[in-house]
Amino acid sequence: MAAAVVRGGPAGWWRWHRRVAAMVCSRAMASKTPVGFIGLGNMGNPMAKNLLKHGYPVIAYDVFPEACKEFQDLGAQVTDSPADVAERADRIITMLPSSPNAKEVYTGANGILKKVKKGSLLIDSSTIDPAVSRELAKAVEKMGAVFMDAPVSGGVGAARAGNLTFMVGGVEQEFDAAKELLTCMGSNVIYCGVVGTGQAAKICNNMLLAISMIGTAEAMNLGIRLGLDPKLLAKILNMSSGRCWSSDTYNPVPGVMEGVPSANNYQGGFGTTLMAKDLGLAQISATNTMTPVPLGSQAHQIYRMMCAKGYALKDFSAVFQFLREEENL
Amino acid sequence: MAAAVVRGGPAGWWRWHRRVAAMVCSRAMASKTPVGFIGLGNMGNPMAKNLLKHGYPVIAYDVFPEACKEFQDLGAQVTDSPADVAERADRIITMLPSSPNAKEVYTGANGILKKVKKGSLLIDSSTIDPAVSRELAKAVEKMGAVFMDAPVSGGVGAARAGNLTFMVGGVEQEFDAAKELLTCMGSNVIYCGVVGTGQAAKICNNMLLAISMIGTAEAMNLGIRLGLDPKLLAKILNMSSGRCWSSDTYNPVPGVMEGVPSANNYQGGFGTTLMAKDLGLAQISATNTMTPVPLGSQAHQIYRMMCAKGYALKDFSAVFQFLREEENL
Amino acid sequence: MAAAVVRGGPAGWWRWHRRVAAMVCSRAMASKTPVGFIGLGNMGNPMAKNLLKHGYPVIAYDVFPEACKEFQDLGAQVTDSPADVAERADRIITMLPSSPNAKEVYTGANGILKKVKKGSLLIDSSTIDPAVSRELAKAVEKMGAVFMDAPVSGGVGAARAGNLTFMVGGVEQEFDAAKELLTCMGSNVIYCGVVGTGQAAKICNNMLLAISMIGTAEAMNLGIRLGLDPKLLAKILNMSSGRCWSSDTYNPVPGVMEGVPSANNYQGGFGTTLMAKDLGLAQISATNTMTPVPLGSQAHQIYRMMCAKGYALKDFSAVFQFLREEENL
Amino acid sequence: MAAAVVRGGPAGWWRWHRRVAAMVCSRAMASKTPVGFIGLGNMGNPMAKNLLKHGYPVIAYDVFPEACKEFQDLGAQVTDSPADVAERADRIITMLPSSPNAKEVYTGANGILKKVKKGSLLIDSSTIDPAVSRELAKAVEKMGAVFMDAPVSGGVGAARAGNLTFMVGGVEQEFDAAKELLTCMGSNVIYCGVVGTGQAAKICNNMLLAISMIGTAEAMNLGIRLGLDPKLLAKILNMSSGRCWSSDTYNPVPGVMEGVPSANNYQGGFGTTLMAKDLGLAQISATNTMTPVPLGSQAHQIYRMMCAKGYALKDFSAVFQFLREEENL
Repeated sequence: MAAAVVRGGPAGWWRWHRRVAAMVCSRAMASKTPVGFIGLGNMGNPMAKNLLKHGYPVIAYDVFPEACKEFQDLGAQVTDSPADVAERADRIITMLPSSPNAKEVYTGANGILKKVKKGSLLIDSSTIDPAVSRELAKAVEKMGAVFMDAPVSGGVGAARAGNLTFMVGGVEQEFDAAKELLTCMGSNVIYCGVVGTGQAAKICNNMLLAISMIGTAEAMNLGIRLGLDPKLLAKILNMSSGRCWSSDTYNPVPGVMEGVPSANNYQGGFGTTLMAKDLGLAQISATNTMTPVPLGSQAHQIYRMMCAKGYALKDFSAVFQFLREEENL
Repeated sequence: MAAAVVRGGPAGWWRWHRRVAAMVCSRAMASKTPVGFIGLGNMGNPMAKNLLKHGYPVIAYDVFPEACKEFQDLGAQVTDSPADVAERADRIITMLPSSPNAKEVYTGANGILKKVKKGSLLIDSSTIDPAVSRELAKAVEKMGAVFMDAPVSGGVGAARAGNLTFMVGGVEQEFDAAKELLTCMGSNVIYCGVVGTGQAAKICNNMLLAISMIGTAEAMNLGIRLGLDPKLLAKILNMSSGRCWSSDTYNPVPGVMEGVPSANNYQGGFGTTLMAKDLGLAQISATNTMTPVPLGSQAHQIYRMMCAKGYALKDFSAVFQFLREEENL
Repeated sequence: MAAAVVRGGPAGWWRWHRRVAAMVCSRAMASKTPVGFIGLGNMGNPMAKNLLKHGYPVIAYDVFPEACKEFQDLGAQVTDSPADVAERADRIITMLPSSPNAKEVYTGANGILKKVKKGSLLIDSSTIDPAVSRELAKAVEKMGAVFMDAPVSGGVGAARAGNLTFMVGGVEQEFDAAKELLTCMGSNVIYCGVVGTGQAAKICNNMLLAISMIGTAEAMNLGIRLGLDPKLLAKILNMSSGRCWSSDTYNPVPGVMEGVPSANNYQGGFGTTLMAKDLGLAQISATNTMTPVPLGSQAHQIYRMMCAKGYALKDFSAVFQFLREEENL
Repeated sequence: MAAAVVRGGPAGWWRWHRRVAAMVCSRAMASKTPVGFIGLGNMGNPMAKNLLKHGYPVIAYDVFPEACKEFQDLGAQVTDSPADVAERADRIITMLPSSPNAKEVYTGANGILKKVKKGSLLIDSSTIDPAVSRELAKAVEKMGAVFMDAPVSGGVGAARAGNLTFMVGGVEQEFDAAKELLTCMGSNVIYCGVVGTGQAAKICNNMLLAISMIGTAEAMNLGIRLGLDPKLLAKILNMSSGRCWSSDTYNPVPGVMEGVPSANNYQGGFGTTLMAKDLGLAQISATNTMTPVPLGSQAHQIYRMMCAKGYALKDFSAVFQFLREEENL
């Protein structure tokens, strides 16, 4: 905790002043000082627990008090607002469901920025519009602190196992400091570039994932209707140019692979409603940058329609079932 | 050539009679008897040459006499019509550009069926509508001969090198006989099921390929516009769930990989016009089987528009360039 | 009946010979001679009855004998095959569900062409692929008879009321002869051009109809979610550039108009499965003519998916309900 | 000008207080007091001139000083910032190219809200995201003033002729006050509902317009390739269920109609880049409200691709040319 004391003192102030100017931070030395964690939902909960496991004191906050209770029992300090977290920790991780939530947590009436300390490192692992990440980064910089976007790939299982992938955007000199924390929760921490590029990488990957998953479902369905055995067709695709993660690792056709959601009535996995959300972000980013994404936008519409037809909570590979359903004349 | 004499003789007739009844053929024993080859275009030319290299006498025909001349010089026997080929060879390979050509070559006024010998093995390596393959198979069976569809994957380079992939549909007992010939021209010969399933496998693979290629182009383009370095983005996709053949083996963005068409101004490779043709076949198959293929049909439209905008002869990965072109206000 | 006798005599033969050469026919004089009618389904039944009402003796055939019984009671002559119809009538109307049925009725083992008389006028009111219409026309011409395609617009109600619209393709000199019969069943008979253009006109109209219906459903749904009153929005669209038949005459939103399927739980009207069929024909025609139809192909996919989701027999304006359904998280 | 004096006096203050509380305004009585106009571009220029013609003193501002010069010569008072306009006029019309511009003009450092007078009526005729309109309305209301969104339909020609259509969203009691000004510039002023519904109506109309224009282009192109005469096909569509504004009033095929952009090489009219912008707004609104718009999003992509292919400044009906271009093999 010594480092934290230094941080508050006058000598510390001077050091922060210089550091912030250069945006180069020695926070890495300050390990095992408390880490703030805001957003203790399905993903945030196991992530924060992994921080605790690695010996970091956690200062916790969630808009739902019941989400915090478990952490109190685990020895974390629970606060009343994001501002309070910022008062007590100079490294904070946020994990929130959407852009408006992120804005509220950072710039709201009781937001982090109300009490953020100069030189603090704020890492947002939410998946949000990269334009919002850049906006937040600007507001954070004005306060003399550092903002990085670090969305994750991998679901609740990976969060529990501590092997998420983090895609990180922000000032490169701060990357090591961020990595120190993120490696407690993930096995892969990739530096992507300036602020917002972490989001960009995640959004682009998930857009391509959605497209190739729907494409795999269409190709498998068409092949089956043309008389091919599904396992054989999958084998052929996987040794040919149609091969993709959705065909060789996460095949959407029941009976082709074991241990994937299609083998378990599309339970678990990555929910259709979450995919629809990510595709919405891709759509907005594409619109704002005037980038044509004809298949990406169509994939968005298909997952949107699936949500409305009862697939919201099923794994996104259920698009095979959605497209396959028989006509009922 | 002894075997061929036997085939023509009366004892041979009796054997054929039995064989055709069972549709099980001992042609495999008859190796090095002449093989007919109809269609000596970009693909057929190197394929027929590989048969010659493996010691098979070739009986050749092409609708353009000049395409045959080279084969005359190489010692092949050139004929005046598909019917003439059928008169002189009881194993024939056809490699034609489209369904109408295939119909003409098999069932036309001077088509194979005018003079086909009972028990002949007719292998069609054209990429055509599986429904047409089934139609041809029926007509061939009526004449007491055997039809298999065996479309290829791999372009002119693979045809020259003899490492095409053949996807074969037809009676399973005939597969070995077909394989004997096809292995002279390809390194992979896959049995797919009843007649038409070779076409089905090829069409499904290429539809998924087109979808994931366009998806890769969209995702790479969007990422670049959002500030990501293309090589880094490709690396991230390839270690994540967006990974596909188009991203890790045939990346469409210039500068990301070497030795692919995108590194060479999209020359060579698999032409946009050919991809548009295959997607048209997928579309027709999907329409006829009432299979929804929302992304497959959109991919078809995009390659169709590209053809009209000057990309017809460029590699199909040029969709990246097509989508990327800057606005010119 | 006198004219029919003349038709059979030697002088008649000479006249036919001249007539067929010129493809100009005096059949119009021959009114009230029998008219053949093949295909007595939902549409054919009321159409044939309207011919009877106008005093034409009808020679009837349907593949389902029970469909003919009613006509026997009404005084029509029922036959055993299309060939038999052709033997007894030199003007025949066919109304069949699909291209394969039409091929069978014309060129099948007991098809019209087996016994068609020279100079006969064969009018096909089925909605089929224009390429098939052209094929049939060629086969019919070879027999010295005349073929016209005359698909209808308007559903069962219009068929009963005798106010269908016929779009007619074929030799222009024959148009008056066709019109004589078609006006008994329709209020609008439009000459479209050479054989196949009747189908083309119908297919193009229905493709545009499907596109603007889905577009209307999307725009109304979006407007409602953005806070607009549906009736007001419809009024605004109808006085603006978004106006279309689907918005001003057949609005898909319940409560906006009376007397349309959307006011009656999407019962009656033009079934989703029929629209999907017509869009399939448009798709095949577009593929064959290399015409890009990005929205037409997407509309096809949407109606295809609706069929699989229980909308097959609902009016095609139910796409509003399909898109509107609320998420059920 | 008397009324203005009253506005500033103490009694006036009391009146404003009451008025703002009720959000019911007697500004209508105050006609011929100055009207602010911000944004003097292609559309704003003729609109502001029409206000002058109707005798309203105009207080003008544009970010480009040269845009104001003409107005100085016409007797308008030119100011240095939106704030200055707000200081001198209590009725202001804004006509800006995009959401960020609108935000800047209203809430920027020298924005209207810096000096807006209580009770002022602020009418935004820009076409922007309805969510931004609602945001601006909230900020304006906090200052005790009134905000209405009033986007226009009709282009530069209609702006000059004073027959634009205004779609107005906001508090209903203020509608008459807004209408007084808007009728100087338009022939149609429609009340749509709460703030943002003016934008919503415009966006929905233009989305449906884009869809039916592309649909018309596809249907006309397909029909022509299937052998139909374009004028005849247009006539058939217009008497059938495919009829829409794009087919009967603004047909995109050269030679079908006179006096439309397709008759003049697609010059003039409504630019492709503007349509792409409106479709982007529709896309964002649909994403935010989770509304599936499969054809709307595809239309967006098509106009986006057209912009990149040199069509940005051509009329949006040029999509016919874009889809029609011949293959060049």
